[in-house]
Amino acid sequence: MVKHKLQLDPAVREEARRRLLSIRGHVEGILRMLESEDVYCVDALRQIKAVQGALDKVGELVLRSHLKDHVVTAHQRGDVEAIVEELMEVLKYR
Amino acid sequence: MVKHKLQLDPAVREEARRRLLSIRGHVEGILRMLESEDVYCVDALRQIKAVQGALDKVGELVLRSHLKDHVVTAHQRGDVEAIVEELMEVLKYR
Amino acid sequence: MVKHKLQLDPAVREEARRRLLSIRGHVEGILRMLESEDVYCVDALRQIKAVQGALDKVGELVLRSHLKDHVVTAHQRGDVEAIVEELMEVLKYR
Amino acid sequence: MVKHKLQLDPAVREEARRRLLSIRGHVEGILRMLESEDVYCVDALRQIKAVQGALDKVGELVLRSHLKDHVVTAHQRGDVEAIVEELMEVLKYR
Repeated sequence: MVKHKLQLDPAVREEARRRLLSIRGHVEGILRMLESEDVYCVDALRQIKAVQGALDKVGELVLRSHLKDHVVTAHQRGDVEAIVEELMEVLKYR
Repeated sequence: MVKHKLQLDPAVREEARRRLLSIRGHVEGILRMLESEDVYCVDALRQIKAVQGALDKVGELVLRSHLKDHVVTAHQRGDVEAIVEELMEVLKYR
Repeated sequence: MVKHKLQLDPAVREEARRRLLSIRGHVEGILRMLESEDVYCVDALRQIKAVQGALDKVGELVLRSHLKDHVVTAHQRGDVEAIVEELMEVLKYR
Repeated sequence: MVKHKLQLDPAVREEARRRLLSIRGHVEGILRMLESEDVYCVDALRQIKAVQGALDKVGELVLRSHLKDHVVTAHQRGDVEAIVEELMEVLKYR
């Protein structure tokens, strides 16, 4: 574990929240779509894929911020091993 | 486009809804997490990844159902080209 | 297991071979690149990613052919369960 | 662009070469497989997927090494922006 007071950049945190609010709305849209017995599988798959894409963007945002603010300074802080391993874990099948 | 009255199987639709309700809850959990200025990037990334995994499962469910109910009968129905192309589209970078 | 004499379409087989020959060449290019002690990690990563992209294309080719020639006729052949399950398996984290 | 004499760690370079030699062999195995007109699509897809998995492992190896040796020291070196952007690029749809 990284011993830290490492925190997500406030502006990125705000942008991530904004996007996740929109993602929640999108999920609710799929929920409504699935109330209809006429829904077609591929239309549901397309919506799920769109939400995945939107989540990818949030992940990208947070990842870039983490790299810039915390990973590039790990050597100076002395927590290289922990920073790298937790990052590798989270990058698997992103 | 597939001309159809092809519909998502009701039991699968119900299961997909159940899972998406849980996914909405998970997204709301991340939103609450992001209200705190102490949130750590990697913790946010882990939660995003968990939601992606849960969405993968819903997609898998709907995909299997679509294959079983609609794709394997496309030749008899006579809409092979449309069924295959829309499926290939939706499978890209799933 | 699918009991079959289901075969990959000859033209697709030929195209897949052509692409895999080029992929083999690309892998050999990376091998030569890695002989140099000056190689930069990100350059290696870019080449690996390019090969992955080329393999995705071959996979797409074979998958589309499989869908068109074998999956859409599974109901008539009577091997729906086997065809769908082996396909789901191979699509995981494609 | 990162201005550098940043080099891939020799031991990792050797391990990556070893694995890529095996991957080349695997690709050649698929090429031989595709010479037979009896080859079944899903068997080809399984082999392609196995090669993708092996390439993922090489990528993981090189990425971890890059993070440990170059990314965590970027702040001291003063090339944060370049290091982060090229990394984000290479991580897309890994």
